[in-house]
Amino acid sequence: METYVKLVEVSPRDGLQNEEKIISTDIKIEFINRLSATGLAVIETTSFVSPKWIPQLADHSEVYQHITKQQEISYPVVVFNKRGLIDALAVDVKEIAVFTTPSEKFCQRNANCSVAESLQRVAELTQIAKQHDIRVRAYISCVLGCPYEGNITPAAVASLAEKLMVLNCDEISLGDTIGVGTPGKTKTLLQTVINRIPVKTIAVHFHNTYGQALANIYVALENDIRVIDSSVAGLGGCPYAKGASGNVASEDVLYMLHGLGIKTGVDLEKLIKVGHFIADYLEQPNRSNVGLAYQIKE
Amino acid sequence: METYVKLVEVSPRDGLQNEEKIISTDIKIEFINRLSATGLAVIETTSFVSPKWIPQLADHSEVYQHITKQQEISYPVVVFNKRGLIDALAVDVKEIAVFTTPSEKFCQRNANCSVAESLQRVAELTQIAKQHDIRVRAYISCVLGCPYEGNITPAAVASLAEKLMVLNCDEISLGDTIGVGTPGKTKTLLQTVINRIPVKTIAVHFHNTYGQALANIYVALENDIRVIDSSVAGLGGCPYAKGASGNVASEDVLYMLHGLGIKTGVDLEKLIKVGHFIADYLEQPNRSNVGLAYQIKE
Repeated sequence: METYVKLVEVSPRDGLQNEEKIISTDIKIEFINRLSATGLAVIETTSFVSPKWIPQLADHSEVYQHITKQQEISYPVVVFNKRGLIDALAVDVKEIAVFTTPSEKFCQRNANCSVAESLQRVAELTQIAKQHDIRVRAYISCVLGCPYEGNITPAAVASLAEKLMVLNCDEISLGDTIGVGTPGKTKTLLQTVINRIPVKTIAVHFHNTYGQALANIYVALENDIRVIDSSVAGLGGCPYAKGASGNVASEDVLYMLHGLGIKTGVDLEKLIKVGHFIADYLEQPNRSNVGLAYQIKE
Repeated sequence: METYVKLVEVSPRDGLQNEEKIISTDIKIEFINRLSATGLAVIETTSFVSPKWIPQLADHSEVYQHITKQQEISYPVVVFNKRGLIDALAVDVKEIAVFTTPSEKFCQRNANCSVAESLQRVAELTQIAKQHDIRVRAYISCVLGCPYEGNITPAAVASLAEKLMVLNCDEISLGDTIGVGTPGKTKTLLQTVINRIPVKTIAVHFHNTYGQALANIYVALENDIRVIDSSVAGLGGCPYAKGASGNVASEDVLYMLHGLGIKTGVDLEKLIKVGHFIADYLEQPNRSNVGLAYQIKE
């Protein structure tokens, strides 16, 4: 498996949006700048969403403008509607992330619209983005199960992925939003999706709620997936029970990738330090096994 | 992968031997009896070792005698020397576990003898055991790395495994004692060992120190391994840094196996409850992601 894998670090957005603690804009900027120094190629920076919905990210424009951007790093931002995209364009964003899901109930509760309407939104956003030469990453949530609908079929995910490609999205990130996936189901899902869209356009986004994320990522690698979403210190990913895990920890993913002889360009030791920096600041346990085992701090 | 996997629950021995808290004999018995009610086929019960070395397990004979033994469950005990075996025979033990390792330094520090001497001990113990119709499980420690010697070659592990088979051991459990293994190295190791001894005699014992255990176990399943050691609530396995993980949690392994359609005979919900029971008693965090996500208590 000697190859290159692109890690997409989602902690500044997916990790910080659920924090109860108020995080200063300065800390967010410092955090992203530290992540930028680790060798990561993609850092999802914030969400251009109304502060009515996610007050934690109300400073999105300020954060985006004041981080030290490096030429070779992409800093995508999440956008839900045209207003968000206009605000993102105003600060010269180069990549956006949009959302949809095959689950009608999840779509209603999370985006307040039907799946068809969410696709219309993606179509509108992607059209505008493409006019401005902006890259579009599309998340499909609940690909291995939904908290409201239960089972989600691989065919439904593959069909949605195909539609997103038709709408000109550049990359499709398959999200196991509630972490229920196991390697066999992951393999079936990926093979179904790979039959419909190019494997190079597929990313995976696993949550470690039931401890399955690394096994699922290994299956993704076996199936030629080369883009993996993760979050330093395992931040975010909506853990719904006290002490439970959310996003898979970037450090643990990186340890596995490097152990497999896969190149990432990321410095593990630096990343571990950033994980401790943010977990300490948030006064949260570090949810990376590698972070805890190394205990490298500055 | 529709098949049967035998889980070997190691928590009463490997989990409790490192506890600072003094655990009453009654609680140990209660704990093992609860494990017996989950459907587990093998429960490593204690270690017949001098209380000079492991005072936590000084009540080994009492525990072994007073647990409610079920016909279909095996209750192996760890034995290091002839004295331990004689004590085990006195209480009618049916299966023992013995230790060796390819690492000279680890052998010296842990068993106070050379690797060759440890094999002589295994030979002596196995010979006596076989005279009494006792099954012998042999652990090989440090199969993917040693804390003192660093790299361990798959060839060294395979050679040792072959010697243990010649000595009439029934099962060889390959232990990644410090949890450094990643799936590629695990695959190479297993394929090297499988070339030398029957795959049916091989068990795997992974530690989750760096979060890699489930990915490694998945690779073991792909390579036809059907015996997996694990520990409820992730107890034990010598976590050397505060908050770090030791043994892979049985609940997380079981969740993956059942998700893969593999039969184990174990009731996940019952096992989760036992995990909370012992973690609560020990006043330790439950290190099973599945345990934390479910939060099923009695």
